[in-house]
Amino acid sequence: MISKLPNVGTTIFSVMSALAAEYKAINLSQGFPDYDCSNELKAMVNEAMQQGHNQYAVMPGLMSLRSAIASKISNLYQQTVNPEMEITITPGGTYAIFTAIATCIHPGDEVIIFEPAYDSYIPNVLVNGGKPVLIPLSFPDYRINWTEVRSKITPRTKMIMLNTPHNPTGSILQENDLQELEKLVTEFNLLVLSDEVYEHLIFDGAQHHSILRYPAIYRNSFVTFSFGKVFHNTGWKMGYCVAPEHLMKEYRKVHQYLCFSVNTPMQYGLAKFLETPAHYLELPAFYQQKRDYFLQLMKDTRFTPLSSQGSYFQLMKYDRISDEGDRAFATRLTKEFGVAAIPVSAFYQDGKDDHVIRFCFAKKQETLELAAARLAQI
Amino acid sequence: MISKLPNVGTTIFSVMSALAAEYKAINLSQGFPDYDCSNELKAMVNEAMQQGHNQYAVMPGLMSLRSAIASKISNLYQQTVNPEMEITITPGGTYAIFTAIATCIHPGDEVIIFEPAYDSYIPNVLVNGGKPVLIPLSFPDYRINWTEVRSKITPRTKMIMLNTPHNPTGSILQENDLQELEKLVTEFNLLVLSDEVYEHLIFDGAQHHSILRYPAIYRNSFVTFSFGKVFHNTGWKMGYCVAPEHLMKEYRKVHQYLCFSVNTPMQYGLAKFLETPAHYLELPAFYQQKRDYFLQLMKDTRFTPLSSQGSYFQLMKYDRISDEGDRAFATRLTKEFGVAAIPVSAFYQDGKDDHVIRFCFAKKQETLELAAARLAQI
Ligand SMILES: CSCCC(=O)C(=O)O
Ligand SMILES: CSCCC(=O)C(=O)O
Repeated sequence: MISKLPNVGTTIFSVMSALAAEYKAINLSQGFPDYDCSNELKAMVNEAMQQGHNQYAVMPGLMSLRSAIASKISNLYQQTVNPEMEITITPGGTYAIFTAIATCIHPGDEVIIFEPAYDSYIPNVLVNGGKPVLIPLSFPDYRINWTEVRSKITPRTKMIMLNTPHNPTGSILQENDLQELEKLVTEFNLLVLSDEVYEHLIFDGAQHHSILRYPAIYRNSFVTFSFGKVFHNTGWKMGYCVAPEHLMKEYRKVHQYLCFSVNTPMQYGLAKFLETPAHYLELPAFYQQKRDYFLQLMKDTRFTPLSSQGSYFQLMKYDRISDEGDRAFATRLTKEFGVAAIPVSAFYQDGKDDHVIRFCFAKKQETLELAAARLAQI
Repeated sequence: MISKLPNVGTTIFSVMSALAAEYKAINLSQGFPDYDCSNELKAMVNEAMQQGHNQYAVMPGLMSLRSAIASKISNLYQQTVNPEMEITITPGGTYAIFTAIATCIHPGDEVIIFEPAYDSYIPNVLVNGGKPVLIPLSFPDYRINWTEVRSKITPRTKMIMLNTPHNPTGSILQENDLQELEKLVTEFNLLVLSDEVYEHLIFDGAQHHSILRYPAIYRNSFVTFSFGKVFHNTGWKMGYCVAPEHLMKEYRKVHQYLCFSVNTPMQYGLAKFLETPAHYLELPAFYQQKRDYFLQLMKDTRFTPLSSQGSYFQLMKYDRISDEGDRAFATRLTKEFGVAAIPVSAFYQDGKDDHVIRFCFAKKQETLELAAARLAQI
């Protein structure tokens, strides 16, 4: 069999989590909380199971859940999306992204991807026969150079992938980014795939510039979200995609034959949970408190924080001790100092190494304290 | 955007279930039970949620669940599969099938598919740029003509798709089918994708000829299974794929970037539930009783049963009243007689119409009684 992904190994998240487990290190690598999701939410899911909601949901997802999402979008972004035609529930954000690419990308199509990039983007494009066109974000502020983007557009350019708040860097798109994007999308009729799984994890009073706010961009866009990332249940693998009807129509053709529908009792639970807007309105403060606490604890270490304005993640620059790369450094950190983190070079195709590692601060206070104490030993 | 599936509409299952709901008909169309799954199993899932197992499972699935599956395979098929390398948990059987195709099929590759075919197979091949090569099963016994299969093999033939017990027909592969398959697989080095989601739903003491029993075929095969179809919780969307290490290695590369991992508390629950072999050993009798009861009830109608040896489904031939096709007939049955079924022509690309419709008998006794009483009016 000819491999479609000859250069792909095991994802860095699995590698580092396994290493953390092996060395009993504190795991600040893979992005997941070490605290539990809401008991209320779990009770809602259990209630749905007990009531016998255990057979197929309708293909695009429970209408009650889609309606709750549409209300949230209206509350937060003052936009009207039609839950009947524009929202599809998916088994997680990663699936939502893959399916958008599988829907649109034909062999030879070019897809613009900014690096550092979440590690599924490039393989997703390759599996579908597309060609990733990689553009680096600036260092160390991780912004998009729109002039460079324009220079990389060719007649084969089909799609541009965005991620805000950004994994791994915690940077967020600004108003002017969206203006530049709108120009390009309109001029070249590009599709946009916007990964907004950290939508509610945004700090310092900043606005989340969701593509949903920009009708001229949205009409060419797939926008993907995650329940797991924001409601502290990454293991439930629940997410959704929002897209205008003409795109969602094609997306659902792929989805209906890829997994058809998504876990029914979990959908019931989430639909009910979303009825209370506080459940998502409280998230920015909850996560900012974690970021702030982690930053304060890390003051006593040799690590220098870069700016994190959103997501689960805080990047830290470190002074090289030897000529070891950041992968070797992250491994040594795990084995010798008992704290696992992700080397940011893993998010670059060419392994670009700025001596930066990523810490996940979606952890209990005690966990962050213990990790910082260990990191202060370096 | 250029559609990858220009000729695809809404799946017949959604169409008929929606029509059934609209006309308040008894829904014997889409394949799902109208009784609930085990309370014990639901309690096991809830316990896992309560214990805080709500974050990412490892990418291939919980080791305890994979081990339980390996034990089941050893019990039922006397074969050893390595749970570490040969089993991956998926969000349902449909996903397990898509992912195998996405892993192997490059543009232009030919895939042999027998018709009538479960309606995701052809779109799955098309989305991945492959070419479905359609071969009809014989009528009315739905067997494979292996001479015809051999005549359709070309240098581009990459994979042959099988399904036993078969949806929609309820036919099962026999020993001699496996012998013929083994010859072809060996001679032409073909890949096999065997959809065995109804593995435990097999009647009259027949053996399930799983590909897992045939090492010379298995070494070129992906074999896909469903928990939902057998444990009466189709809405949980839980399944798995079994394949030899060299194939599973590539499968996991696609899976890890398609959805990464599968619902954690549901995996815990299923792992525990599988510890009791009775939970699957009792299934053939449970479902045979349903098939037998349905057949007995239908004796008083104008429908003539074809042979169903497995699955949820019973095909019925009917005498044409006019020149209406089976789709029109199934629609009329729903609207006028209050029973929804699936027209078998929906499983043929060219709409081949043998005046046969599919009933799902995975229903409560009362449901089957009520449906049969209505069908006796025709
Ligand atoms: C799907 S496992 C990776 C989790 C994650 O999003 C991350 O760590 O960046
Ligand atoms: C995934 S919905 C279809 C259910 C099913 O397998 C069938 O009705 O054949």
